[in-house]
Amino acid sequence: MGKETLQVAIVGSSGYTGGELLRILLNHPNVTVSAITSERSAGQPITAIFPHLASLTRLICEPLDPAVIAKKADLVFLALPHVTAQDAANKFRALGTKVVDLSADYRLADPAVYAQWYEHSHQYPELLKQAVYGLPELRREQIKKASLIANPGCYPTSAILGLAPLIKQGMGIADLTSIIIDSKSGVSGAGRSPALAYHYPEANEGLMAYKIGTHRHTPEIEQELSALAGHPVTVSFTPHLIPMNRGILTTIYARLTENLDTTTLHGRYSDFYKHEPFVRILPAGQLPNVRNVRGSNFCDIGVTADPRTGRAVVVSVIDNLVKGAAGQAVQNMNLMMAFEETTGLTSAGLFP
Amino acid sequence: MGKETLQVAIVGSSGYTGGELLRILLNHPNVTVSAITSERSAGQPITAIFPHLASLTRLICEPLDPAVIAKKADLVFLALPHVTAQDAANKFRALGTKVVDLSADYRLADPAVYAQWYEHSHQYPELLKQAVYGLPELRREQIKKASLIANPGCYPTSAILGLAPLIKQGMGIADLTSIIIDSKSGVSGAGRSPALAYHYPEANEGLMAYKIGTHRHTPEIEQELSALAGHPVTVSFTPHLIPMNRGILTTIYARLTENLDTTTLHGRYSDFYKHEPFVRILPAGQLPNVRNVRGSNFCDIGVTADPRTGRAVVVSVIDNLVKGAAGQAVQNMNLMMAFEETTGLTSAGLFP
Amino acid sequence: MGKETLQVAIVGSSGYTGGELLRILLNHPNVTVSAITSERSAGQPITAIFPHLASLTRLICEPLDPAVIAKKADLVFLALPHVTAQDAANKFRALGTKVVDLSADYRLADPAVYAQWYEHSHQYPELLKQAVYGLPELRREQIKKASLIANPGCYPTSAILGLAPLIKQGMGIADLTSIIIDSKSGVSGAGRSPALAYHYPEANEGLMAYKIGTHRHTPEIEQELSALAGHPVTVSFTPHLIPMNRGILTTIYARLTENLDTTTLHGRYSDFYKHEPFVRILPAGQLPNVRNVRGSNFCDIGVTADPRTGRAVVVSVIDNLVKGAAGQAVQNMNLMMAFEETTGLTSAGLFP
Amino acid sequence: MGKETLQVAIVGSSGYTGGELLRILLNHPNVTVSAITSERSAGQPITAIFPHLASLTRLICEPLDPAVIAKKADLVFLALPHVTAQDAANKFRALGTKVVDLSADYRLADPAVYAQWYEHSHQYPELLKQAVYGLPELRREQIKKASLIANPGCYPTSAILGLAPLIKQGMGIADLTSIIIDSKSGVSGAGRSPALAYHYPEANEGLMAYKIGTHRHTPEIEQELSALAGHPVTVSFTPHLIPMNRGILTTIYARLTENLDTTTLHGRYSDFYKHEPFVRILPAGQLPNVRNVRGSNFCDIGVTADPRTGRAVVVSVIDNLVKGAAGQAVQNMNLMMAFEETTGLTSAGLFP
Repeated sequence: MGKETLQVAIVGSSGYTGGELLRILLNHPNVTVSAITSERSAGQPITAIFPHLASLTRLICEPLDPAVIAKKADLVFLALPHVTAQDAANKFRALGTKVVDLSADYRLADPAVYAQWYEHSHQYPELLKQAVYGLPELRREQIKKASLIANPGCYPTSAILGLAPLIKQGMGIADLTSIIIDSKSGVSGAGRSPALAYHYPEANEGLMAYKIGTHRHTPEIEQELSALAGHPVTVSFTPHLIPMNRGILTTIYARLTENLDTTTLHGRYSDFYKHEPFVRILPAGQLPNVRNVRGSNFCDIGVTADPRTGRAVVVSVIDNLVKGAAGQAVQNMNLMMAFEETTGLTSAGLFP
Repeated sequence: MGKETLQVAIVGSSGYTGGELLRILLNHPNVTVSAITSERSAGQPITAIFPHLASLTRLICEPLDPAVIAKKADLVFLALPHVTAQDAANKFRALGTKVVDLSADYRLADPAVYAQWYEHSHQYPELLKQAVYGLPELRREQIKKASLIANPGCYPTSAILGLAPLIKQGMGIADLTSIIIDSKSGVSGAGRSPALAYHYPEANEGLMAYKIGTHRHTPEIEQELSALAGHPVTVSFTPHLIPMNRGILTTIYARLTENLDTTTLHGRYSDFYKHEPFVRILPAGQLPNVRNVRGSNFCDIGVTADPRTGRAVVVSVIDNLVKGAAGQAVQNMNLMMAFEETTGLTSAGLFP
Repeated sequence: MGKETLQVAIVGSSGYTGGELLRILLNHPNVTVSAITSERSAGQPITAIFPHLASLTRLICEPLDPAVIAKKADLVFLALPHVTAQDAANKFRALGTKVVDLSADYRLADPAVYAQWYEHSHQYPELLKQAVYGLPELRREQIKKASLIANPGCYPTSAILGLAPLIKQGMGIADLTSIIIDSKSGVSGAGRSPALAYHYPEANEGLMAYKIGTHRHTPEIEQELSALAGHPVTVSFTPHLIPMNRGILTTIYARLTENLDTTTLHGRYSDFYKHEPFVRILPAGQLPNVRNVRGSNFCDIGVTADPRTGRAVVVSVIDNLVKGAAGQAVQNMNLMMAFEETTGLTSAGLFP
Repeated sequence: MGKETLQVAIVGSSGYTGGELLRILLNHPNVTVSAITSERSAGQPITAIFPHLASLTRLICEPLDPAVIAKKADLVFLALPHVTAQDAANKFRALGTKVVDLSADYRLADPAVYAQWYEHSHQYPELLKQAVYGLPELRREQIKKASLIANPGCYPTSAILGLAPLIKQGMGIADLTSIIIDSKSGVSGAGRSPALAYHYPEANEGLMAYKIGTHRHTPEIEQELSALAGHPVTVSFTPHLIPMNRGILTTIYARLTENLDTTTLHGRYSDFYKHEPFVRILPAGQLPNVRNVRGSNFCDIGVTADPRTGRAVVVSVIDNLVKGAAGQAVQNMNLMMAFEETTGLTSAGLFP
């Protein structure tokens, strides 16, 4: 590749998000992955951890030393646990490296809210102010100028994209006190560390809700919806664990403040997202299925206005590892680096 | 078996519900299955259709002739499609045979509501008046005296049991205009007829909502909730298809009219169901999983009061083919025949 | 229950086999489970570990103290890891308690073979001589008189039952040097301890062979086949991990020493197993499916003679946790205690 | 794209293979898909049939008229049922269009063998002589010059690649009379037409062998192995249906004619395939998993020599829709058109 190739590093490459970043970036025409880190697997080829990448890369995991990595990379993706990412982001920024942080550490603008939900204080409130919440459909211009991106959570991506046209200031048509977000996620969303709840015979043929009213993606959703609405928004958010590998389906309920039918509601959504390359509003009357976005960066949305109840029911689906994590991170990188926004992200998903 | 054995027939025995009725009844100490019918498979042994029953029964499918069946059976289970069951129930009742109808035909007390949602008129409005909605936890005394039971739908069973303590007249604590019912069902709920949506590669690793605002179980849920509340109740009900064989998980949202914490709410539920053999209220703070009711007649319920939003979030799970169909039908039969209510239904579910 | 009820204990009750023993024994009319042990969960109700058993039992796990347990139980089921079971079996036998050992510790008659494959020496060679390999279809009379049963492994149960009619001394029709056993197991066979290979997103939509030529069930299979054949038998045995909860399907290949067609071969199998309550030889031309034995104690077998290749291809299926473990253990107990052999084991499996 | 872009058509585009061809070809830099056909869906956009392709293509299905299609396309992929493809291939060849036939119609060189296994006579024996069996690893030079490619079956691809180094004339080390091929396939291999065996609740948590000794891929495997060995080869081939969407794992057993250990055997395989871009021989001691080739064109192979039994046990895995169908078809097209062989096929698979 030529001199103009961007050198990037993946910090924390041994989890599913790290693997997915590699899958996408190895096929990205403007990028070279110059370094990957993993404390646990330092010294090992990444293909020992991800055999599906065998023969496609010879990258070796190294321990995280920001000074070393910063010399090799102009931009780093942080796929680290929350709290750990705080410090890594700060060090890379101090070294002038652009950062796309896939953890939650720079998503919540208010350090007090972060401290409340994550039970750790935020050590870098000044850096936090510079972070941009990386949902391109809502913050594209800010992202283009940003040096530190807080890549959105998987559930929030599906929820916020599904709700935005309903609540955006000046055009909103939803009762902001009525919002229910019922999300269903595949098991890869829980990460790659074995635990009893994700042990195959327990998760397969099983189905449960978890962390009702207490999931940490709740304040992230509320922050972005409140910013959109221009008013504080409080939501009921319930995540569920579904026996499948990938995918999130989010069912959203909101009382409509106008008397709309499905056709009109559909028109609003189509209009809102008409220039978005990765949001597909399904034809009126059709509903999305996670199987149609598996492996792709699309968010598919189906809308229904139910005159009997006066509610909108919106269903949005994404691949939690792509639009909900690695794909969106690459989309953000493309915007930050002035690449074509869709570069490296145009493959169809894998069906069936 | 002795003379006191009840002779029963299963009408429409080749679907999943028919198979499940057989599985349960073949082990029921007070019952002999004396006849089974299937138009499509008449003349065939049931074990050709359900090889898992091989060596356990020699029953042969026969075509449905009510006069013939009525001579062999004191009680019939109708596992027929809706509309078809209308006439069968009428004929059996005319012959004096008790009927447990697993179709929807006798569930909606108002023939006009039936006609609206099922797009067929009801031919037997007089008989409809005699039918009892067979949810033992709410209508046990009526069931004991009934000759025609309308066995509840799978989704309604999970929804109504989950909501009853919140809305029962005189003790209700939910805003009746705020009820959202988000249900998730395994694929056996769609029956045994192959179709593209249930073709393995389409359903596996897939997840979708369907029939938003229009599913036929909606009026059934509203009828029973309205009767409980003593006021008309309208709900938003959304079913989803989950890649698993059995199980329904229903997540219920309702605004609380009192300021309750989870412990208090949990106490109300425990108290409400304290004498019920098949409802298990989980310890406060725990949430149910469909895997724990697979193959059993239990309904497991977990409750949360969320002070942040002022809502109750209730999760109930059942096996759609057992408590949601065949098991509940046998429970109803036990009540009708003055058998011990739990007879034949005391096996633990199959985990994993 | 009356005085004649057998008191049994389950030692090592927190794994899948322990849970399955409880599921079966709680419904067994001649048995009371008087004690259960689990070191890790001592003091906890078993329903905290197995919520599917909630409301069906109040048993509390206790630590394993053979002297204490022996006072409560006339027979113990050992569901312990191999090596650990050696000592427990010895102590219980010294106390006069009958033992059904579900581990591998007493299956291999030759301590040297045990030492070679399990990498531990056998501490109780004298007791080992008294142990009976508990495959009722082949050793029923010995089992009836035994006080220590070595309950067969899951793979060996399916393999030996599938091969017995082909190789039994005096009637064998297979070239003993030609036997290939290709087995496929659901993930519950790997136990309840989380590990990366069984983490849902790794096992789901995955499929692999493992331990080729080195699996510890190999010598167990060969020992029993050799005993049957009256000649040493060496086999190629390959296990595979299948994305499903329960079930083993074993495909067996053997060169025929006679020129047989499928009908004749089928006749030999039907004849061989004609009095067996738990072996179902499928009609000629039909092949078994694990879904038809899920949750039941049946072994279903389908046979094919392929004149093109001169080989028999036999397919046998079992539920690895039932006929492959807990169900067979109860069958053995029934024989040891002179109960009807099928008691507690007559339920149909769960389909779908 | 420039003038040098190859125009291709997909004939029979509504099945899984058609969809997979589109997924790959839409991202192929040297190709434009200029037409797609489907009798059943003529006039419909392909995205109505494959919603995962929405926004990626505007292609409309048309009925198959070879004269019309031949004007639009320089090469056609036939994804038609067998028998139907015979005629289509003939017509396209008469019109000068290159053909990659994904059906079985031109795979068996001997029309009598075709007639025997497919129960139809072959109408174009002359054309059959010109067809090249499109397994690039074994017939690369012939493929480069071919105008009609018989794209291999999914099972044969995995079996032949797994066996080639063992039996190739002059270097073979396997007893040709001893070969057993035990294959396991995901359900997409059965196509997109719903049927009871593939209905989700029947296939999920199910596992069965089928068509023992009679599967139509058997003569195809034997033809290619015989050609390789220079001697007639007869094999036992058993396919199994596995509850997963994609993937084939084939376990191969053969008696070794030399006394080899795994390291030596592994060396032979590594050497045999050292220049192959799509065959990955795993490190000695490692075994392949279908999850690592999902969505990619790789064939992963693991080898074991078992000194105890004198057998080689080889395990090969592919994605049945990619290396087993559409991906291999594109690989063949690349060779026929003198494109870089790996073009359009370099993406990593999707894990998890």
